[in-house]
Amino acid sequence: MGVAILADLLTEILIPVAAVVGIGFALMQWLMVSRVKLSPERQGPLAGSKNKNDYSDYLIEEEEGLNDHNVVLKCAEIQSAISEGATSFLFTEYQYVGIFMVAFAILVFLFLGSVEGFSTKSQPCTYSKDKYCKPALANAVFSTVSFLLGAITSLVSGFLGMKIATYANARTTLEARWGVGKAFITAFRSGAVMGFLLAANGLLVLYIAINLFKLYYGDDWEGLFEAITGYGLGGSSMALFGRVGGGIYTKAADVGADLVGKVERNIPEDDPRNPAVIADNVGDNVGDIAGMGSDLFGSYAESSCAALVVASISSFGINHDLTAMCYPLLISSVGIIVCLITTLFATDFFEIKAVNEIEPALKKQLIISTFLMTVGIAIISWIALPSSFTIFNFGNQKQVANWQLFFCVAVGLWAGLVIGFVTEYFTSNAYSPVQDVADSCRTGAATNVIFGLALGYKSVIIPIFAIAISIFVSFSLAAMYGIAVAALGMLSTIATGLAIDAYGPISDNAGGIAEMAGMSHRIRERTDALDAAGNTTAAIGKGFAIGSAALVSLALFGAFVSRAALSTVDVLTPKVFIGLIVGAMLPYWFSAMTMKSVGSAALKMVEEVRRQFNSIPGLMEGSAKPDYATCVKISTDASIKEMIPPGALVMLTPLIVGTFFGVETLSGVLAGALVSGVQVAISASNTGGAWDNAKKYIEAGASEHARTLGPKGSDAHKAAVIGDTIGDPLKDTSGPSLNILIKLMAVESLVFAPFFAAHGGILFRIF
Amino acid sequence: MGVAILADLLTEILIPVAAVVGIGFALMQWLMVSRVKLSPERQGPLAGSKNKNDYSDYLIEEEEGLNDHNVVLKCAEIQSAISEGATSFLFTEYQYVGIFMVAFAILVFLFLGSVEGFSTKSQPCTYSKDKYCKPALANAVFSTVSFLLGAITSLVSGFLGMKIATYANARTTLEARWGVGKAFITAFRSGAVMGFLLAANGLLVLYIAINLFKLYYGDDWEGLFEAITGYGLGGSSMALFGRVGGGIYTKAADVGADLVGKVERNIPEDDPRNPAVIADNVGDNVGDIAGMGSDLFGSYAESSCAALVVASISSFGINHDLTAMCYPLLISSVGIIVCLITTLFATDFFEIKAVNEIEPALKKQLIISTFLMTVGIAIISWIALPSSFTIFNFGNQKQVANWQLFFCVAVGLWAGLVIGFVTEYFTSNAYSPVQDVADSCRTGAATNVIFGLALGYKSVIIPIFAIAISIFVSFSLAAMYGIAVAALGMLSTIATGLAIDAYGPISDNAGGIAEMAGMSHRIRERTDALDAAGNTTAAIGKGFAIGSAALVSLALFGAFVSRAALSTVDVLTPKVFIGLIVGAMLPYWFSAMTMKSVGSAALKMVEEVRRQFNSIPGLMEGSAKPDYATCVKISTDASIKEMIPPGALVMLTPLIVGTFFGVETLSGVLAGALVSGVQVAISASNTGGAWDNAKKYIEAGASEHARTLGPKGSDAHKAAVIGDTIGDPLKDTSGPSLNILIKLMAVESLVFAPFFAAHGGILFRIF
Repeated sequence: MGVAILADLLTEILIPVAAVVGIGFALMQWLMVSRVKLSPERQGPLAGSKNKNDYSDYLIEEEEGLNDHNVVLKCAEIQSAISEGATSFLFTEYQYVGIFMVAFAILVFLFLGSVEGFSTKSQPCTYSKDKYCKPALANAVFSTVSFLLGAITSLVSGFLGMKIATYANARTTLEARWGVGKAFITAFRSGAVMGFLLAANGLLVLYIAINLFKLYYGDDWEGLFEAITGYGLGGSSMALFGRVGGGIYTKAADVGADLVGKVERNIPEDDPRNPAVIADNVGDNVGDIAGMGSDLFGSYAESSCAALVVASISSFGINHDLTAMCYPLLISSVGIIVCLITTLFATDFFEIKAVNEIEPALKKQLIISTFLMTVGIAIISWIALPSSFTIFNFGNQKQVANWQLFFCVAVGLWAGLVIGFVTEYFTSNAYSPVQDVADSCRTGAATNVIFGLALGYKSVIIPIFAIAISIFVSFSLAAMYGIAVAALGMLSTIATGLAIDAYGPISDNAGGIAEMAGMSHRIRERTDALDAAGNTTAAIGKGFAIGSAALVSLALFGAFVSRAALSTVDVLTPKVFIGLIVGAMLPYWFSAMTMKSVGSAALKMVEEVRRQFNSIPGLMEGSAKPDYATCVKISTDASIKEMIPPGALVMLTPLIVGTFFGVETLSGVLAGALVSGVQVAISASNTGGAWDNAKKYIEAGASEHARTLGPKGSDAHKAAVIGDTIGDPLKDTSGPSLNILIKLMAVESLVFAPFFAAHGGILFRIF
Repeated sequence: MGVAILADLLTEILIPVAAVVGIGFALMQWLMVSRVKLSPERQGPLAGSKNKNDYSDYLIEEEEGLNDHNVVLKCAEIQSAISEGATSFLFTEYQYVGIFMVAFAILVFLFLGSVEGFSTKSQPCTYSKDKYCKPALANAVFSTVSFLLGAITSLVSGFLGMKIATYANARTTLEARWGVGKAFITAFRSGAVMGFLLAANGLLVLYIAINLFKLYYGDDWEGLFEAITGYGLGGSSMALFGRVGGGIYTKAADVGADLVGKVERNIPEDDPRNPAVIADNVGDNVGDIAGMGSDLFGSYAESSCAALVVASISSFGINHDLTAMCYPLLISSVGIIVCLITTLFATDFFEIKAVNEIEPALKKQLIISTFLMTVGIAIISWIALPSSFTIFNFGNQKQVANWQLFFCVAVGLWAGLVIGFVTEYFTSNAYSPVQDVADSCRTGAATNVIFGLALGYKSVIIPIFAIAISIFVSFSLAAMYGIAVAALGMLSTIATGLAIDAYGPISDNAGGIAEMAGMSHRIRERTDALDAAGNTTAAIGKGFAIGSAALVSLALFGAFVSRAALSTVDVLTPKVFIGLIVGAMLPYWFSAMTMKSVGSAALKMVEEVRRQFNSIPGLMEGSAKPDYATCVKISTDASIKEMIPPGALVMLTPLIVGTFFGVETLSGVLAGALVSGVQVAISASNTGGAWDNAKKYIEAGASEHARTLGPKGSDAHKAAVIGDTIGDPLKDTSGPSLNILIKLMAVESLVFAPFFAAHGGILFRIF
């Protein structure tokens, strides 16, 4: 067995220090972004290192009127409109979700408290019957607390992300006047602020919570980490509503704006005459940014909790080996440091000088962080783990060596990279899949849709093999603990992942602001180039999110099965099989709800936009202002109303199945939802991303082939716009929400497992 | 225990008699259809009973020129062109598939023969170690024979179906001159010919094969029925190529014809000026008719084989209780008689007098056959089964009573009805789902697609619950045998199911012929009404096909697991889990291939059709004839070439997984493909069906709401046409082929199980 090289005290210092360094770095980046002033006094470019001032190619001072006060003021004005809209929506959303969260917290307390009839007496431990553990009532109280803590952290993560993004978008637009490199750095730094704040914040809160809970639990680590799983549940519940609500908001506005603006009225995207344009830009921030932030925070929290809960009943927990126990947190700590170094490669070590360098720079971020992290994992596995230890494996203890655990984390990390690159291949317009889709627009929207759907289906193959291989390796080496740390490995570079992910919507908004502020065509071209790369990184981010969600939910599933004291989940029993097939259906049910919601909300938006174009005189000529507020209200109302049924489906399914059908059927449901949901999510995200970029490919006309399809307004382009519109709810509403579906059902089952094991399966007991 | 009431001798007589009666009935129906003459001598309507000659409403003698020789000759000419095209395609297809089948037959022989190193010595039986069974070599020989027998029967089924359909289509057109009722009866009778021939033929061949095999196997029933499973494999392999090849053929032609004809040139569907029109009509017969025939025959053969193989190792087989052993065949026999009576309700007891009576008449067929069959099952369960017996259940024997088996069959039967009705609700334009989709066309193709996809996803919910409930009930009552007979229950009314299913494409073709022959608008309206009902029944048929495929493949999966001597399929082992997630991915991979194939072939077709319109002078004016043959050739070449990769994916996956990864991973793959494929198949079929009928809803303009969306050529109608085109490959190529994917992989695993159990899992053995 042996002990870890790293002393316990050092571990206790290292983790919070890494978190604080991450937060400090985020603030530093923010400071640099803030040097771009949204007031007309400034005379030259500020962001980026001053010693590389070679932007003679990009200076277009005279055309743009750099010192034109009006343009800057206009940008500032639009930015504040977007920021206010987003803040107001999030507050409204949080009010409704807050009520739900409090209600659900009560449910958590009641269900878990009832396991031993609200008794305050200590009970024999589940896994070491000779010892006494804290009562179920304590678990109920602390699970409820950690649930609320997770929800609040998630809420703060999403909100901060939105605030940073809306702070950065107009600044990116203004920097675009100085060249694409300057704009890129501003957008990227802002993304980094969000990435580091979220990663560090998630780690810090978790660390503090564990230490506070320890005051009560003492050396009952089993109970302590059981209660901590509530943190993951809280984080994911919040993320669910954030993703679904935000997704409906943004896509109702986007689809509505495009259908009337681009298709019927033939005005450009983000034209200020379009009444839905502000709602569309607000949507990017509440959907793509806040939603994604909450989502990845949730994955991070859940994989940490899954690893910790399994570790607590393994030799780490039984022997009270603190450093080894904290291995999951140490991986995240190293991840923050690695991502910090990686970020410097984009912001300081190299500089973007031309449009075609953007995507490689972002890809380099992924590669560098993966390489560095591999080294980091090796070091931490060597110093933080005993050379040999045992891991709980469905009733048995499995012997594992530290290098084996290194492989588990590394395989997850590298699988993430593979998924990222495959996603890029299928969604970037630099490769043949998207170009084929663009080409199919020649024969109209129907072939475009057929090719796009086929592309999405095809893009599932390699990611699934990557996930399957990492599951097989980590499962074989270290059972469910292996899966949990593999998920953590994939998420260890979350700060970089979030940075390049948030970069996309920020650039998208920057383009919107340029258009609305009436800035020149060339500025728009630059932000469009940033945005095209952003579409791909957004797809990569979604790939990561779904890949990690698959691993996380499998780990949670394993922890649930352990906690529910099942020794097998046998497909050859009717209870499990019906769970499996019904579980595999849930992603479809969920997608049907969310897509229909977007469709209906978009129809309302279309009617309102049409009404304004028809009834406001001078709107098309630009002499009258549209009524933006009504469109914002339509999106807000629709998303608040429509997020409830899919939210309820996800939150209630485990409760209903567990209570009425019992843990066997529930385990079938979880496995079915996992294996089916992953496919639907990946294909939906990639289909949508490909359509979006096929359209951009035609619009940009950067190659001989692309020019034969264009220009804007050609029949092929119209067909591409239809595909893009269809892809919107797929890639930004139903697809990414499915990650949360599979994770949330698993973590909820885990939290409620003691209740289901004690009182579940009512129906089968009656018959 | 006890014995069955029905004497063995009577059983041996009953089964072939029922089959012969079925064939006789089919011939009788054919005779009645043949009384509609395709030569100009005839003076009045002949089909249907003469005593109900009240078609004063429908007689339009003068307008139509009933005695116009030219119209009749024209119809005959078009029919023979379609028939020749279809025959020629099927022969080409069969040549290629024939080579493959022979190669695969050799593979079957080699793999199974190698299990005991081609030894000719008898071996101890798998399930009764004290007895000696025939050697593995015998199993290899007889499995190969039954494989070829299944393939040939399937081939004949598909071919006969096509012949009947092409025989009936022009006759339906001509009868439409006398009213919608006459046309309906002709189309329906022709469908019945196909339904009864297939059901009876399948039963008869299986019965004869069993009796011939018995000459060698004697009382080694275990070996006998193991060898018989090759029949299912042969049937399904053939069906796979039929479905995929035919599906690509028909949709390449259909999409290509529509994209240029309807969208670009604004000429009606089936206009004779369209060069792809003959290919399109040929496609209906080789894809929808021959493909569907092979598919359902495959399901029937497989569920019979699955039931028989489980029964052979249950008390029926061990005690050599012939009547009970033949219970699956007896159900099918009763089914033929029940369907015969049911058919009379449509053809003789009632008469269709108006367009709105068509769909209810077809629905009534389903309801009547289900009610009658329930009684039939009750009787046969009472007289053919001992009051109590044991069923093999993964190593144990489970005690079952005859009334329990009745419930198993009945639950499958009724689940089929529920699936049928849900499918109808979601795809018929009489209900709100399709009307909502039509309404969404107001805002363009994008919202139409979003709503259509959401509809398809939603339509999965109830069928999955219906399947889950029947699985739970039959699994709990009689283990895997229960599932197998539940599948048989769902398929017991296959003759009626096929009749109403084949009716659709026949009506579709009839409409095409009316258009091409230049018959009046009113004739076309009548055939369109028949066709709209046909779209719904086609969707219902697909619902049945996929529902039964789910049950069948589960039963086969169970039989495979038994034969591979696995006692559990535990999701919590890495080998099984990776199988599960990869299996769930296969339907996506397969769909990507088939959809891309249709898309590419359609693009080629579009180019050819455009070329002809541009280069043949006088084509648009109708003064020159298009070159139909080139279009037929494009479809033929594309389908032959493109059916190979998806075919190989399905056929090779079980072999590769079983050989290299072993039976645990393979069982995961089967379960994953099953639970995921069902969802994809149902949603694809229903989405496509709904789009098709949304378009027809707008075209027909039968309600106030529909008229606000139309007429033909309006923007909403154009959007609906785009949806319809996208739906084509979903509903007629990838969706229905997925049934075969899940069944075929299961039956193939079952046939090769002895090999995998003996030599499989090479990779895991090495490491």
